[in-house]
Amino acid sequence: MLIVMKANASQEQVRSVCEKIESFGFRAHSIPGAQRTAIGITGNEMELDPGTFDEMAGVQEVIRVSKPYKLVSRDLKEEKTVVRFPNSEATVGGVEVAVMAGPCAIESREQALTTAELVARAGARFFRGGAYKPRTSPYSFQGLAEDGLKILAEIRDRFGLLIVTEAVDNESLELVEKYADMIQIGARNMQNFSLLKRAGRARKPVLLKRGMSATLEEFLMAAEYVMSEGNYNVVLCERGVRTFADHTRNTLDLSVVPAVQRLSHLPIIVDPSHGTGKRNKVTPLSRAAVAVGADGLIIEVHPDPDRALSDGKQSLFPDQFDQLMVEIRQIANVLGRSVAATVPNPGARRPTPVSTASGTAAAR
Amino acid sequence: MLIVMKANASQEQVRSVCEKIESFGFRAHSIPGAQRTAIGITGNEMELDPGTFDEMAGVQEVIRVSKPYKLVSRDLKEEKTVVRFPNSEATVGGVEVAVMAGPCAIESREQALTTAELVARAGARFFRGGAYKPRTSPYSFQGLAEDGLKILAEIRDRFGLLIVTEAVDNESLELVEKYADMIQIGARNMQNFSLLKRAGRARKPVLLKRGMSATLEEFLMAAEYVMSEGNYNVVLCERGVRTFADHTRNTLDLSVVPAVQRLSHLPIIVDPSHGTGKRNKVTPLSRAAVAVGADGLIIEVHPDPDRALSDGKQSLFPDQFDQLMVEIRQIANVLGRSVAATVPNPGARRPTPVSTASGTAAAR
Amino acid sequence: MLIVMKANASQEQVRSVCEKIESFGFRAHSIPGAQRTAIGITGNEMELDPGTFDEMAGVQEVIRVSKPYKLVSRDLKEEKTVVRFPNSEATVGGVEVAVMAGPCAIESREQALTTAELVARAGARFFRGGAYKPRTSPYSFQGLAEDGLKILAEIRDRFGLLIVTEAVDNESLELVEKYADMIQIGARNMQNFSLLKRAGRARKPVLLKRGMSATLEEFLMAAEYVMSEGNYNVVLCERGVRTFADHTRNTLDLSVVPAVQRLSHLPIIVDPSHGTGKRNKVTPLSRAAVAVGADGLIIEVHPDPDRALSDGKQSLFPDQFDQLMVEIRQIANVLGRSVAATVPNPGARRPTPVSTASGTAAAR
Amino acid sequence: MLIVMKANASQEQVRSVCEKIESFGFRAHSIPGAQRTAIGITGNEMELDPGTFDEMAGVQEVIRVSKPYKLVSRDLKEEKTVVRFPNSEATVGGVEVAVMAGPCAIESREQALTTAELVARAGARFFRGGAYKPRTSPYSFQGLAEDGLKILAEIRDRFGLLIVTEAVDNESLELVEKYADMIQIGARNMQNFSLLKRAGRARKPVLLKRGMSATLEEFLMAAEYVMSEGNYNVVLCERGVRTFADHTRNTLDLSVVPAVQRLSHLPIIVDPSHGTGKRNKVTPLSRAAVAVGADGLIIEVHPDPDRALSDGKQSLFPDQFDQLMVEIRQIANVLGRSVAATVPNPGARRPTPVSTASGTAAAR
Repeated sequence: MLIVMKANASQEQVRSVCEKIESFGFRAHSIPGAQRTAIGITGNEMELDPGTFDEMAGVQEVIRVSKPYKLVSRDLKEEKTVVRFPNSEATVGGVEVAVMAGPCAIESREQALTTAELVARAGARFFRGGAYKPRTSPYSFQGLAEDGLKILAEIRDRFGLLIVTEAVDNESLELVEKYADMIQIGARNMQNFSLLKRAGRARKPVLLKRGMSATLEEFLMAAEYVMSEGNYNVVLCERGVRTFADHTRNTLDLSVVPAVQRLSHLPIIVDPSHGTGKRNKVTPLSRAAVAVGADGLIIEVHPDPDRALSDGKQSLFPDQFDQLMVEIRQIANVLGRSVAATVPNPGARRPTPVSTASGTAAAR
Repeated sequence: MLIVMKANASQEQVRSVCEKIESFGFRAHSIPGAQRTAIGITGNEMELDPGTFDEMAGVQEVIRVSKPYKLVSRDLKEEKTVVRFPNSEATVGGVEVAVMAGPCAIESREQALTTAELVARAGARFFRGGAYKPRTSPYSFQGLAEDGLKILAEIRDRFGLLIVTEAVDNESLELVEKYADMIQIGARNMQNFSLLKRAGRARKPVLLKRGMSATLEEFLMAAEYVMSEGNYNVVLCERGVRTFADHTRNTLDLSVVPAVQRLSHLPIIVDPSHGTGKRNKVTPLSRAAVAVGADGLIIEVHPDPDRALSDGKQSLFPDQFDQLMVEIRQIANVLGRSVAATVPNPGARRPTPVSTASGTAAAR
Repeated sequence: MLIVMKANASQEQVRSVCEKIESFGFRAHSIPGAQRTAIGITGNEMELDPGTFDEMAGVQEVIRVSKPYKLVSRDLKEEKTVVRFPNSEATVGGVEVAVMAGPCAIESREQALTTAELVARAGARFFRGGAYKPRTSPYSFQGLAEDGLKILAEIRDRFGLLIVTEAVDNESLELVEKYADMIQIGARNMQNFSLLKRAGRARKPVLLKRGMSATLEEFLMAAEYVMSEGNYNVVLCERGVRTFADHTRNTLDLSVVPAVQRLSHLPIIVDPSHGTGKRNKVTPLSRAAVAVGADGLIIEVHPDPDRALSDGKQSLFPDQFDQLMVEIRQIANVLGRSVAATVPNPGARRPTPVSTASGTAAAR
Repeated sequence: MLIVMKANASQEQVRSVCEKIESFGFRAHSIPGAQRTAIGITGNEMELDPGTFDEMAGVQEVIRVSKPYKLVSRDLKEEKTVVRFPNSEATVGGVEVAVMAGPCAIESREQALTTAELVARAGARFFRGGAYKPRTSPYSFQGLAEDGLKILAEIRDRFGLLIVTEAVDNESLELVEKYADMIQIGARNMQNFSLLKRAGRARKPVLLKRGMSATLEEFLMAAEYVMSEGNYNVVLCERGVRTFADHTRNTLDLSVVPAVQRLSHLPIIVDPSHGTGKRNKVTPLSRAAVAVGADGLIIEVHPDPDRALSDGKQSLFPDQFDQLMVEIRQIANVLGRSVAATVPNPGARRPTPVSTASGTAAAR
């Protein structure tokens, strides 16, 4: 059930409605929009009588929602969600197409810093790189864990890049929340509901990757899990689905971008690196992703892909990434969007923030 | 086996090699390229000794081919194939992005002509429309057959549009070859090898749609069937594959475009109408298809989609098609390609060709 | 629309109803059942008024059918269809589990006869073997064509085996109809509607294989195409569908057997050879197919699988087939069904029929 | 790398080899077999020199393993693993086909006990029922948590049934380990590697369900994760994979049973309830699963399926389950296996164990 408030409803009126909802044992999610505030109700609200709210002051309309998702829905919030970051111009879901780039895994400080400088120079505002790697084999490289997170924090401080990195369980999520700017939930964990709920209680935005065989509804419901715990800053990510096709590692389903945008206010980005698994497909599919209307890209770049400890075959060489940025910038312009400009000397982009890892976390 | 001739090899030398090949009971396919001529050999050439040709005049190199496809391969012909049409500037595989548009089925002369004028005005050079419709149910509208083809021929004459229409068996193929400019083989017939061979003996270009669950190799091998019979003007078409995903009718696999272009010299276009099955996804996916590098689009447009006898839900309204043309023109420009301009009065575009339907066929 | 006649309706009354239907330009399909005759109407019968028939003599009920299939439906005919063959005890759909066995392709008279004797001895009543092979590559062995059919006819005469073989187009169908006992339509042609209609006009039973990515409804609609032309002897065949799974060539979907049986009166058999593509999986999946309730099996057996011209990897060795027959006989018994007994000297099973190939065909 | 010991190698010699392995920083897994002991080495053993072990006393052979899985492999242990339970005759992987039955979720004490009595009477030795339910929607019933586990423990005590129930994160796993006899890891968590490792440190057997789109290799690697932590009692479970097919909820892939058995010594059971999602398909597919060679079944039964809080549509009515047991018992016999007999008065089956499950339970 959604309660749509009048355009001129007061904060007080909104609060009254929320209290009423909670008095019945349900949870109220007040979502302010450009025109009006809507209040989502979660819990088994079947038993709630819409009449209870109809006559309350400030209430314009009470809507029964037939879809299984509520908080992710455009019915609740018509304007697109724009995810913002403290002390940064970067957004996801705004006019600018967000570019997240970096190696699959953080392998060493040197590898990470080299890559960070390259991608910052090309215009990326986000740095990606795994400190915790979910690997098919227990005997494969599993990531540097907290040491990797510390390297990532250093990268933020040196280059002003926002850090996106994956959490694989409650323990790692706690650390990722501390060190990074955006918590990635990987495809294999898209229905790890325990982890989704924990991410919903985090105070950093969540990047939620589509599961390998997730339907659109399951994908949105996974986001609903995060939002139902109170974290409304969720960015979806299409990364290819599993099909019979064998010319790519996964089949990148770009149609899910307009499909999500029709049903939900959440931003959605595309991962053409995992989505194709082949370096030579990354640039054309990146162009296509921007052309279809995606809010961003997440791309694997490695200074020496042939020696990468994971996913080298799908990582771009640095000069390929530079070229990709040029091409998507032009496509973005056609759609009335932009891509951040190149930065000749990214190390100097921002005065080294005094607040390092720990301080940063405190500030948020 | 491929025999690559020297750049300065004479016609006579090429002919000698072909005759030698045929003297062993194999078939020779001489494919002239910009720099050199290559000769493909088909038949079970395992038994052929490369030494037989090594020393012949004009031969530069004899290459054993390990891939199952030969004639479709970039190994045989490095430059992209550009399919051309008599008395028309239109191409598929050239600089211009080919746009084929029209209704799913030819329902009546009026419906067809109305649509044709609309799409010609917007800049399409090809008119699509089914006279033979492969329908899941035997009780659904199956097309107007030869009457439909006659309407299509009239459209060519009035608007200068090239006609693309589907053949479903040998009988219909004979008529399509007579009336149309391009013979479409539908997804359900991609492995109807008997029909592919018949199309390979036709003297009109073939538009070959990817089967619903065809791998890249099967798709290329289907084209090889057509080419092995001597028809080298084959255009491939991605139209979505069948997966678990249920937010679109099929899952449009845009990654197959660069994958085909890497392995084959044949042009490839995209059908976002069947590829998504939903009108509101057609324009974003069309932009994406052009951005990924497709050589063209085939799009369903209907003057009154809600009353269409088939596939109304995925047909664009005329004004949506106009807008689509504007958007893809801009994307094409970013890639150094073009889309034909709008034509204020398409009926006057070409002096009515004297040769009408029957004469046309004769002339080719 | 279905018209259900009273149990005691006369032939005359049935004929009157059929004539009435045809007077409106529709087609009447009168299907006698154990208790009653039902009459299916095909054509766009939306325009027909049920009231037209309600009051006719012998009519019990007029049913609007909402499903897209009619003639295949249990609504039309509650009892299972049992397909019978002239001069043979063999059935498909009866108590006996039908076993069809033989090589993928007829390669030579010797190979075919050797295999035929082996499978006849083990108890198979049907011999399978392709004379026309739909192959992914135009350069692969395509079958012996009519020469292969003649070998098959000889096998029928010598061993009393019923012949099942594939037709790939109208021309081959005509010959298959002449020489064989059952016309196979392959998976790649399941939606070759032109071929389905031609098979619907044939006077031999049709074995219709499920397409690689056919839904249950599409599968039933393909059978409907055959039946709508008047051939009601259709046997369905599950042969695996295409999925992401890579441990078998296809994924055998045994659940489709009870699903078909719930909706349709047609028999359904299973092809574990194509369904798995691996010899070592054929026997366990054959047991499972019988256990799930399939009406038969079609199995590839080759006297020397390692030298087979096609599909050797999935062909059983003769002794493996013997063992398989033993195992499925026991499973069949559990379900109250049987499998034909071994035949010590199959060549003598039946008095050599005077009518050989051509005469046989004439007699039918 | 695997080190195969001589048949007559002493415990001492085995220990020496293990110590040697660990002295290099790797982990040794000593797996005793009927004929010989094999020792698996995990860690990045690429750097180990086989020569190091060749000459040690009792070593017969040092094998380099090319497959990514080791501990699950038949190379390590040729005989099938039989999972046993303290104070119970029940096994998984032995001659008896293990039957696990019960409701999808524990909804109440009454519902659970009623069902338990029914399934115990019919011969099931294992009781299934979720206390933690991973649900697509955050607003659906999520299970009774520890209260549910207590009901399950009571059921073990009253009916002598072994308890199988799902853990969804580290916290719930700890409780499931305490109360239940077998820890289920659900399909959605098949690649929740953090949870797999935790299960690998548990002292109860693990039932590992195949992920919705897991390949055979990924499935085995998930088991390898559990075993690499030292828990060798892993039972695999096929529960249907996601495909385009829409007549069942998932497509049950029975071919994976012989495929697993070929590569691995681990037992594998089948879940036809989730595998089909439809009550009327459960019995035929159960028969098929036993016929294909599965080591057991896990089946949803509910005393009143239409009122079930989850998955009612796929739950059997009690009398359907009785009938299913009769049918699979007969099929099992054909394969030389058995199914436990009916128990007229299951509540009296065992003298109420004071120390349930041997002190195992007491210890909790």
